Amino acid sequence: MSEKAAVLVAGSWGTALASVLADKGLDVAIWTRNEAQRDEINTLHRNERFLPGVELGPNLRATTDMGEAVEGAKAVVIVAPSSAVREVAKSLKAYYRKDMLVVHATKGFEIESMKRVSTVIAEELGCEEGRIVVLSGPSHAEEVVKRYPTTVVVASLEDDQAAAAQDLFMNPYFRVYTNRDLVGVELAGALKNIIALGAGMSDGLGYGDNAKAALLTRGLAEITRIGVEMGANPLTFAGLAGIGDLVVTATSRHSRNWRAGFMLGEGKPLQEVLGSMGMVVEGIRTTKAAHAISEKFQVQMPIAAQLYHVLFEGLDPRTAVEALMGRDRKTEMEAMSLETWETWHT
Amino acid sequence: MSEKAAVLVAGSWGTALASVLADKGLDVAIWTRNEAQRDEINTLHRNERFLPGVELGPNLRATTDMGEAVEGAKAVVIVAPSSAVREVAKSLKAYYRKDMLVVHATKGFEIESMKRVSTVIAEELGCEEGRIVVLSGPSHAEEVVKRYPTTVVVASLEDDQAAAAQDLFMNPYFRVYTNRDLVGVELAGALKNIIALGAGMSDGLGYGDNAKAALLTRGLAEITRIGVEMGANPLTFAGLAGIGDLVVTATSRHSRNWRAGFMLGEGKPLQEVLGSMGMVVEGIRTTKAAHAISEKFQVQMPIAAQLYHVLFEGLDPRTAVEALMGRDRKTEMEAMSLETWETWHT
Repeated sequence: MSEKAAVLVAGSWGTALASVLADKGLDVAIWTRNEAQRDEINTLHRNERFLPGVELGPNLRATTDMGEAVEGAKAVVIVAPSSAVREVAKSLKAYYRKDMLVVHATKGFEIESMKRVSTVIAEELGCEEGRIVVLSGPSHAEEVVKRYPTTVVVASLEDDQAAAAQDLFMNPYFRVYTNRDLVGVELAGALKNIIALGAGMSDGLGYGDNAKAALLTRGLAEITRIGVEMGANPLTFAGLAGIGDLVVTATSRHSRNWRAGFMLGEGKPLQEVLGSMGMVVEGIRTTKAAHAISEKFQVQMPIAAQLYHVLFEGLDPRTAVEALMGRDRKTEMEAMSLETWETWHT
Repeated sequence: MSEKAAVLVAGSWGTALASVLADKGLDVAIWTRNEAQRDEINTLHRNERFLPGVELGPNLRATTDMGEAVEGAKAVVIVAPSSAVREVAKSLKAYYRKDMLVVHATKGFEIESMKRVSTVIAEELGCEEGRIVVLSGPSHAEEVVKRYPTTVVVASLEDDQAAAAQDLFMNPYFRVYTNRDLVGVELAGALKNIIALGAGMSDGLGYGDNAKAALLTRGLAEITRIGVEMGANPLTFAGLAGIGDLVVTATSRHSRNWRAGFMLGEGKPLQEVLGSMGMVVEGIRTTKAAHAISEKFQVQMPIAAQLYHVLFEGLDPRTAVEALMGRDRKTEMEAMSLETWETWHT
């Protein structure tokens, strides 16, 4: 009998990760609350709303019963929107076993508490945070299901958990690196969505590739600065979960965050943008969290601040981008925050 | 009477920088060897081959006489292909004055000597290298002439020279930062073209955005590593001349390096690619230089090495990219070369 893994829930990235596991010969159960989606996956082997045109493997099944999904699974992969992670982990609690590998691939924060996703999951499961692994990196679901070459990073406070996650997912088209910096990988994955929103906005305003590249460069410095303040290794931001994911999110039309930013840049109101997306735009929620984090840690986040004004205070996007372009800074190293990089130690 | 600046030579980037200066009200003389091009610029105010459809300002004039171009100029901007820089600087020698600001915007090396461009210019002018300023960053000429917002960095060993170059170019759509790391800015600008070639090749092979993002991430780590070995500040590679320029070069169809790589990825032979470009592809020459540098400094440059095999030894691009994807490296920080970052000091 094949080994078993469970994936919670059936969005595009969850379904793509499920299909990576199914490709490795595992029996994969996807848990969803939506009965129509369950039936579509089980009878048509499709998940049209989230991955149009993709045929899913026969060893990938869906269920609305979490107990059934998780029973006998050696690994559980949580890929819920950040707003639903706590509730999903709470439901998982009844079926959680200490020998179960728990991986999550959610890029965001719990807004109210500003907590990272693995903290939230560990709290609900009543386990050490070291038992949780995060998976992140430049990985459009649409390409992964087509078996295009993709590299990701898994991080955990416990090395053997990260190694187990690496073994679980690694295959010829899906390369998995390990990293010990759980905090950095989670922060980079969440915060980069803010910069991708900003890049989309710049594109929507009709600015060019030069302006977008400048925004990405400053954006990376900005999220690295706050990441270091929160305990991350700055090098993680120079890796797959940082630069890698930022590039893919900010320059590809697959990206929901980029697309939402683009529509805002074109002048569409936030409600219309959200209505037309049909899926969660994590960058918008994350901008709210970053605003609070920036105040708590007293670290300037100029790009996140301007986006906050646009999203929640009605600032005109053009005024926001012009404010960013026009900031009076004369040497490049000021922007780089040399000091935080230099004083950082393992 | 207006102040005067000279630009040598009339390629797309030289013409774009000339038009930034002309926009600031300077009288700008562009030097070119091509009489037809000179006449086109002076009578039609166009440089169709290099900047199709763009109208140049009336205070921008061309001449084939270098003495005439440089006479009375407070600044000279050298934007020749790397293979022509020494010769252009040699011709400039006769007209060079100590009070002249010399800026260059050439992204490459002198292959035979592995020398940086400012070293070559200083040798020919017989001045200190500190008198030379490099200008670099994410800046497609096509966007600059349309006055799209653009940010660049200028670096020099002498602060007042960098500050003078900042004053010379800075305007509302062209923001100029200073950086003291001349070596890093020159190396980043040159070496990033190799990674852009590789990114184009990956795209030409039909790989996706995930693969390209992974390549860019590793590429940045690779050029940072060799840069540090050659005396650069690693943070420069996280700035406009590094990440910023890499993103814009590797993700935009404006980029000749990306395009050349794309055609190679599609299976076109090198001679055909070069023949169809009509302009210099610096990344190809730079790959040759990097190969020599990598051997001299005993630093591994896996991406540059694979490209060298493709360009000059007939290796199949698919085999090269697969070799890169398949490298047996398990933790992300190995790739990051943590140590060189941590031991670097100002």
